[in-house]
Amino acid sequence: MAKNKKMVDAITSMDEDFAKWYTDICMKAELVSYTSVKGCMVIRPYGYAIWENIQKNLDSRFKALGHENVCMPMFIPESLLQKEKDHVEGFAPEVAWVTHGGSEKLEDRLCVRPTSETLFCEHYAEIVHSYRDLPKLYNQWVSVVRWEKTTRPFLRSREFLWQEGHTIHETAQEAIDETERMLNVYADFCEKDLAMPVVKGRKTDSDKFAGAEATYAIEALMHDGKALQAGTSHYFGDGFAKAFNIQFTSRENKLEYPHQTSWGVTTRLIGAIIMTHGDDNGLVLPPAVAPVQAVIIPIQQFKEGVLDKANEIKEKLAALGIRVKVDDRDQSPGWKFAEHEMRGVPIRIEIGPKDIESNQCVVATRFNGEKQFIALDGEFEGKIKELLDKTIPEGMFAKAAENRRNKTYICKTTDEIIKALEEKGDGFVKAMWCGEEACEDKVKELTGVGSRCMPFEQEEISDVCVCCGKPAKKMVLWGKAY
Amino acid sequence: MAKNKKMVDAITSMDEDFAKWYTDICMKAELVSYTSVKGCMVIRPYGYAIWENIQKNLDSRFKALGHENVCMPMFIPESLLQKEKDHVEGFAPEVAWVTHGGSEKLEDRLCVRPTSETLFCEHYAEIVHSYRDLPKLYNQWVSVVRWEKTTRPFLRSREFLWQEGHTIHETAQEAIDETERMLNVYADFCEKDLAMPVVKGRKTDSDKFAGAEATYAIEALMHDGKALQAGTSHYFGDGFAKAFNIQFTSRENKLEYPHQTSWGVTTRLIGAIIMTHGDDNGLVLPPAVAPVQAVIIPIQQFKEGVLDKANEIKEKLAALGIRVKVDDRDQSPGWKFAEHEMRGVPIRIEIGPKDIESNQCVVATRFNGEKQFIALDGEFEGKIKELLDKTIPEGMFAKAAENRRNKTYICKTTDEIIKALEEKGDGFVKAMWCGEEACEDKVKELTGVGSRCMPFEQEEISDVCVCCGKPAKKMVLWGKAY
Repeated sequence: MAKNKKMVDAITSMDEDFAKWYTDICMKAELVSYTSVKGCMVIRPYGYAIWENIQKNLDSRFKALGHENVCMPMFIPESLLQKEKDHVEGFAPEVAWVTHGGSEKLEDRLCVRPTSETLFCEHYAEIVHSYRDLPKLYNQWVSVVRWEKTTRPFLRSREFLWQEGHTIHETAQEAIDETERMLNVYADFCEKDLAMPVVKGRKTDSDKFAGAEATYAIEALMHDGKALQAGTSHYFGDGFAKAFNIQFTSRENKLEYPHQTSWGVTTRLIGAIIMTHGDDNGLVLPPAVAPVQAVIIPIQQFKEGVLDKANEIKEKLAALGIRVKVDDRDQSPGWKFAEHEMRGVPIRIEIGPKDIESNQCVVATRFNGEKQFIALDGEFEGKIKELLDKTIPEGMFAKAAENRRNKTYICKTTDEIIKALEEKGDGFVKAMWCGEEACEDKVKELTGVGSRCMPFEQEEISDVCVCCGKPAKKMVLWGKAY
Repeated sequence: MAKNKKMVDAITSMDEDFAKWYTDICMKAELVSYTSVKGCMVIRPYGYAIWENIQKNLDSRFKALGHENVCMPMFIPESLLQKEKDHVEGFAPEVAWVTHGGSEKLEDRLCVRPTSETLFCEHYAEIVHSYRDLPKLYNQWVSVVRWEKTTRPFLRSREFLWQEGHTIHETAQEAIDETERMLNVYADFCEKDLAMPVVKGRKTDSDKFAGAEATYAIEALMHDGKALQAGTSHYFGDGFAKAFNIQFTSRENKLEYPHQTSWGVTTRLIGAIIMTHGDDNGLVLPPAVAPVQAVIIPIQQFKEGVLDKANEIKEKLAALGIRVKVDDRDQSPGWKFAEHEMRGVPIRIEIGPKDIESNQCVVATRFNGEKQFIALDGEFEGKIKELLDKTIPEGMFAKAAENRRNKTYICKTTDEIIKALEEKGDGFVKAMWCGEEACEDKVKELTGVGSRCMPFEQEEISDVCVCCGKPAKKMVLWGKAY
């Protein structure tokens, strides 16, 4: 261990400087690289492979529910963006403007999409005429641009990758159901596949998406006690339909406005993975999205039979669909251990001449650093698969859930909030709220934590607002946000 | 057939107006839709699903050869674009310029990438230091923007989807090999999976990519006798490396410039599919990329057992990985036949009470309109799979190859070219060339056909140039281009 420590000493410890630790991982695990385009980044092969695995997983979940992928233009004419009043107010200040095409100055300048509600609405106005045309369950995988002032890899950048689902329905209830259904898809993906516990809830009005009637979100707690919004799902009512004049002939043969939703997750999820699971040795990846799930490191690889055995094990695991590699580079095992730890590979398999003699190998699991001997018999591949599919994700989830439990404070007064944060550090605060925006603001001012969401799972902490003492309407989850 | 004809009579016949026939298919098969963003389009679910299949197929071919996906920013600072002189001259006149971010005016304006050589070079300069870092075989799936004056769905639009491979190598030979290897991948994909014959060749100097030493292309002949460039692969030598100061320490411990390539195919391939295989009943899709490979149409579907049988067949085919659907909508079989013909579904399976009685069904293949009875016995699924994997693509390829054969003219003089085109219509012309740009231009001026490429498979048509009569250097493939 001492040896490994030394090899990765270029990473700042997370306790020393969490922000620097985060950036170090992004760079040393070769997830991203900076460019001369301010606020934008290169997503490097290892980082992009994580995103591809996220995409593949979510895309098949979406398609199983009947969603179809489309592709809208990346540009939105200013006149189109302006059609929904709240929406343009929310987004116009942070968009990039295209003013010239070649040498020609554009009459109606174009913004690079910050989100595509307006384009989907324009298209729906063209193709939706009857209840028979509904619902439309569309999604697209694209990048969007928001002109952020300060940026950080994955968490906040001027361009980021995401999926944006946009659906349109006959009735309000159907649209509300879709909004909740997709939030549940996100939550299930985060908890099962990313091993990251999330709180599902509704945003307060001050925190709603520009143009939405209701915004739902999943909130995760990072290792440093800060909150990260990991996905959102919006219910629009018929506001956009009215602004864009989308109407359909109903079953009762009347002209009606349809109801819409949108929902999205972004490359931010990679930031969430880093800050939920990472440690001082680097990245720790959940097996479901790890580009390499198991790495086999031959010990004394020059000795006869070692590499052959390593490749034999590899073939057996690959046959089960496991993403596995043999690292036979001309480097010491210790150097390789450190590198694959840095890159968060879930399982390391060590195989050397002595292991081969006793027909076994050493299997180390990245998330808890544990090592065990496993016999190279007929049950070997099954055991590795069990580790990847069950033991590791469940263990990672339990570890993250425990961190969250330790950092969740139930408070009845703002003083209690201040005290908890001071004594135990940043975390989630559960406290009651009267529903007034003034109290929301005041809590933030006094304690530093803002409202993250009103969790679907409400608890009865007290019957009065944590701030004003008037009757409480909702338990709110508070926290400092990324 | 008379009935079907009537149902799809909204399509213009291809002999009457090929351009309108093309646009009709794009719209009626619901591949694309126009938007208020001039020159850009919505790729609708059916069109996008074709692109997803193209992507999946090519992506696995790339990865099998060791390529890795990355994602570069969509913006390029003007100062970066200007680093390679030929490159900026080629692209600057047709890019979209971002001049403002939010309300702030940018100091260095950004173009929306028309192609990403400059960004890849900047990144390579950062990560390539030693021969041990080479090669890098990178690719990205993104959209790019070129400010075209006149646009047509898939063939030419201001934004289009593509993949761009960018690789960097120790030696010139390695890079040349890569350029050729990727052209061969494209050609193999087009011929085997898109059933579209292509000619592989090298572009003349006047037609090279801006900044390339050599550009290779695959050229296909559309049904109307016009040529379509279906993919390109460029060899850059060390020109970009010098412009961007990318250097590495060689095996001989010397500082050297690496050699680079780039290669790409676009959503244009969908246009090529339409114009290679389509007919007056609509789209004809190659099974490899068809979103629905077989559609089952129940006849008298209200009768007991019919829908059950249709679903039973569906399950059996789906188990073999075939993309299959039952169309049980409340419409007449004739209406459904016409719709699925319009959408180019390769196989239609008809099953009604009489068929069930005799344990068989009718199988119609879209590309040749043939119908046959196939027994619903244990060999049924295998026979359908054989149709999809072999009979249909081979039949489609043979049909397209015959069209190309009939429209390829071997000419020794420009008069012969003029005569052939007049008598037989547009097509490929094979004729010798002396290598002078003046002759290239003059052939175009006199005959209307321009140089498409210098085919790798050279033929000895004559020993003198078709234009000037001086000694010939190359056989050139000439044609009118999309």
